[in-house]
Amino acid sequence: MGMENVGWLYEFLVAKAAEISAAGSQRAAVISISLFVSLLCVCIVIGHYYEENRWLNQATIAIILGCAVGFVIYILSNNAELLSFDEQLLFIYLLPPIIFNAGFQVKKKQFFHNFGTIMLFGGSGVLISASIVTAGCRYMFPRLKLGNLQMRDYLALGTIFSATDTVATLQLLHQDETPLLYSLVFGEGVVNDATAVVLFRAVQRFEEAGLDGKAALRMIYEFVYLFSVSTVLGVVIGLIAAYVLKSLYFGKHSTDKEIALMALMAYLSYMLAELFQWSGILSVFFCGIFMSHYGWHNVSGSSKITSKHAFATFSSISESFMFLYVGTNVFNVNIWQLVDVRAASLSCAMLLALTSLGRAAFVFPMSAISNYARGSSSVKLRFRHQVIIWWSGIMRGAVSIALAYQQFSTSSGTMNTDYATMIYSTTGVVLFTTLVVGVVTKPLIATLLPHHLRHLEPSSPKDESCEEANEDGSSIFLRRSSLSMLLANPTSAVHSLWRGFDDSYMRPFFGGGGPVRDSDAWEA
Amino acid sequence: MGMENVGWLYEFLVAKAAEISAAGSQRAAVISISLFVSLLCVCIVIGHYYEENRWLNQATIAIILGCAVGFVIYILSNNAELLSFDEQLLFIYLLPPIIFNAGFQVKKKQFFHNFGTIMLFGGSGVLISASIVTAGCRYMFPRLKLGNLQMRDYLALGTIFSATDTVATLQLLHQDETPLLYSLVFGEGVVNDATAVVLFRAVQRFEEAGLDGKAALRMIYEFVYLFSVSTVLGVVIGLIAAYVLKSLYFGKHSTDKEIALMALMAYLSYMLAELFQWSGILSVFFCGIFMSHYGWHNVSGSSKITSKHAFATFSSISESFMFLYVGTNVFNVNIWQLVDVRAASLSCAMLLALTSLGRAAFVFPMSAISNYARGSSSVKLRFRHQVIIWWSGIMRGAVSIALAYQQFSTSSGTMNTDYATMIYSTTGVVLFTTLVVGVVTKPLIATLLPHHLRHLEPSSPKDESCEEANEDGSSIFLRRSSLSMLLANPTSAVHSLWRGFDDSYMRPFFGGGGPVRDSDAWEA
Repeated sequence: MGMENVGWLYEFLVAKAAEISAAGSQRAAVISISLFVSLLCVCIVIGHYYEENRWLNQATIAIILGCAVGFVIYILSNNAELLSFDEQLLFIYLLPPIIFNAGFQVKKKQFFHNFGTIMLFGGSGVLISASIVTAGCRYMFPRLKLGNLQMRDYLALGTIFSATDTVATLQLLHQDETPLLYSLVFGEGVVNDATAVVLFRAVQRFEEAGLDGKAALRMIYEFVYLFSVSTVLGVVIGLIAAYVLKSLYFGKHSTDKEIALMALMAYLSYMLAELFQWSGILSVFFCGIFMSHYGWHNVSGSSKITSKHAFATFSSISESFMFLYVGTNVFNVNIWQLVDVRAASLSCAMLLALTSLGRAAFVFPMSAISNYARGSSSVKLRFRHQVIIWWSGIMRGAVSIALAYQQFSTSSGTMNTDYATMIYSTTGVVLFTTLVVGVVTKPLIATLLPHHLRHLEPSSPKDESCEEANEDGSSIFLRRSSLSMLLANPTSAVHSLWRGFDDSYMRPFFGGGGPVRDSDAWEA
Repeated sequence: MGMENVGWLYEFLVAKAAEISAAGSQRAAVISISLFVSLLCVCIVIGHYYEENRWLNQATIAIILGCAVGFVIYILSNNAELLSFDEQLLFIYLLPPIIFNAGFQVKKKQFFHNFGTIMLFGGSGVLISASIVTAGCRYMFPRLKLGNLQMRDYLALGTIFSATDTVATLQLLHQDETPLLYSLVFGEGVVNDATAVVLFRAVQRFEEAGLDGKAALRMIYEFVYLFSVSTVLGVVIGLIAAYVLKSLYFGKHSTDKEIALMALMAYLSYMLAELFQWSGILSVFFCGIFMSHYGWHNVSGSSKITSKHAFATFSSISESFMFLYVGTNVFNVNIWQLVDVRAASLSCAMLLALTSLGRAAFVFPMSAISNYARGSSSVKLRFRHQVIIWWSGIMRGAVSIALAYQQFSTSSGTMNTDYATMIYSTTGVVLFTTLVVGVVTKPLIATLLPHHLRHLEPSSPKDESCEEANEDGSSIFLRRSSLSMLLANPTSAVHSLWRGFDDSYMRPFFGGGGPVRDSDAWEA
């Protein structure tokens, strides 16, 4: 390509950029959608080429591509309209399909088997991590002369940097390769959304009441409340959807209606939870679990295939879009103009250190507790597992950025230097962790976990026998043995009790009855 | 339910309504999305119950439900925020999936067989109709003292009411039941989108230059230009997608990527056309046709099933949403406050009369021309066919309303009484035609077209023989006979030439090669 051609391209791009500045909102939307859709196509194609590459994943590619395009736009124009970050887009449109799909495709047995550990990590673990990040910031920032933040802002930073990014985790760990680690880290991410909501509200109430024992108790109560209502909402909507799909029996020719109803009900569970200011992520996750457990069995064959793939597609587009969006946002002019680069780099490094410290401070102790509670019957979390859980949970993504924008750009109306610095550092942490953690995790897992160590869980012999008993339908046997089992191993006992209840009452009513079990059904 | 309960419900709703008024934009979005998603679920379930009902269709149900909810909201609060019509939502998000799916699932043979007639209807037909509506309004409105409109506004009215609503047509005619009528009326709707764009631009330029012979020639040139570039863009993107899908061969495990790429490329064709200010509808329609003709053959089996159903689902959700949206918008407080009810009702009736007159003025003459051009070999459009084409094309939908809002609310910045009256009458026409035409069409078709008259086209014996010749691969025979065939029947000749080219060059390169033809492949 000769220089004239490049010159022509440059002029064309400058003209387009100027047009964007001048354009109305509809035109601006058309331009940015065209841009992002083209980038997504490029991402998919590049991602396909590097699928086998152990250093790259879809997130890394998307974020690098986004950065490059953001940089080009930044050079060509000083327009910030195209690149202003919109949290609404993220929380209302992109997040629900991702989390729903995760619930829909999650290995339920694995997830519920580790439920206790997940709750430990997602509930109290995040609280510990948030305290450490908050305390660290409160102690270090004034000493390093990093802006003039309030206690409220430190608490917000603690919350933002303690919550694992569910979407980022999906990019790192794969359900089929490392099922145990996936269910633990991803499950933690889902559960700690509720924790984050509670913490965020506590932060917003902070000015009124101080932080004492009573407030702490209240926070625990609120966590339990939020967790319960959000879960129940998701479960109820999932069951309603299953019942409607079963009782209407849309038949062969209405695959459209079946899929539409599944998708809309799932979205409704997220939206209603947000409407009541509960945790939409928890709701839609459990809605996904129940929809795949019951509703999915009531639809036609082609709906089964379509739902599985269409939801996965939707989720993967949303994921790539998120990382692209983060990438293009790195060069946000509004923020850059205000930022003190020294302060921003320092606080970025501080936050990174505190995040990894805070995470270490709960992953290792909580794993010990979990191992102790599992007793002698189960396989334990080895130290190498714990290292991977700690490491892969450090990655922060679009959700963290969105939370940072929510906290630091709307609370004061206009943005000041300190707040711009915080948003800038959050972006820095996200960029750094996505690239470094994203690149290192695959090789790390390959090194620490040789193939034979990955599939340890949870098909211990005891669990298998339960299932066989179930499939004989011998519920008398189950009832007789359940008490002794409860004493020996509480998780398995609860599991087998649930199986009995599920087979006798739930499945016949909501669907999925008969001898077919999930494991077989997914193959269909 | 006792009166106290109703009272409690009322108070709850009033409180919610007040909350909407006070809420920020994110909260308002959550509330209206929750509302619309719930309504969509209800729509699907009710629509399923009345599927066999000959008087109702999904559009009628959605619009009635929307009206009811809009009325309740109107009573409870005077909030207009929730109900303000957003054309952007329609043109950027809802329309593309609907038109793409129509192209993806259209019976290509039927469509191209009737291509000449479709172009007659969609091109010159709409021009005739627009002239009649414009002239009628220009003549009648001042005499009936209906506001103080400019010539420019009359031209806009002509454009808005001459274009058949593609989405509305999809609700009335079914490809499997009345293939000939479907392809004619729907095809007309797609083609006349280009006409409408040209007319709209001509209207916007009207103030500068008058309407003379030169301007008319220019409009014809612009129509041909717009039609060609939009079509070529769609075709090229469809072919690129097919080539990428074929050459990358995503394999068994990447159904997500295949579907994502198909959907994104299709959306890109719409967006790029809009970016260049061409006709996005034409582009995405032809992109859909080419993607199903080539690209679809390059993907895995589960991608085939998923793409077919997922696109249909997306399209059907968008359609229902559109009609719901129109329904809730009937009680738009901003408009109601300004409207003079007498004038609005009168102009609504006038527009209805002019629309049907304008449509009659081209459907019957153009059908005669089409019959003449078809010669003696083909089946002709009988009078009863023509009546149904005329009648079912009268229905106006969300697209008309969106155009009315675009013309009458942004051009002057604020809205005056005359403009509010025009939007109000457009809504009235849409409501009336959706309900009346929607209810009457099914019975009308049943009366006018007994079952044996529906499947007349286009499998005339000559056409069949072409296909057989093709499948033997005897292209020498084809070439020898093509000249005599061109003289006897131009459409079939072009068709068979294309088939030869397609089989020899296009399919081997872009996919869909081998002995499998569409008709078989869709069964897979």
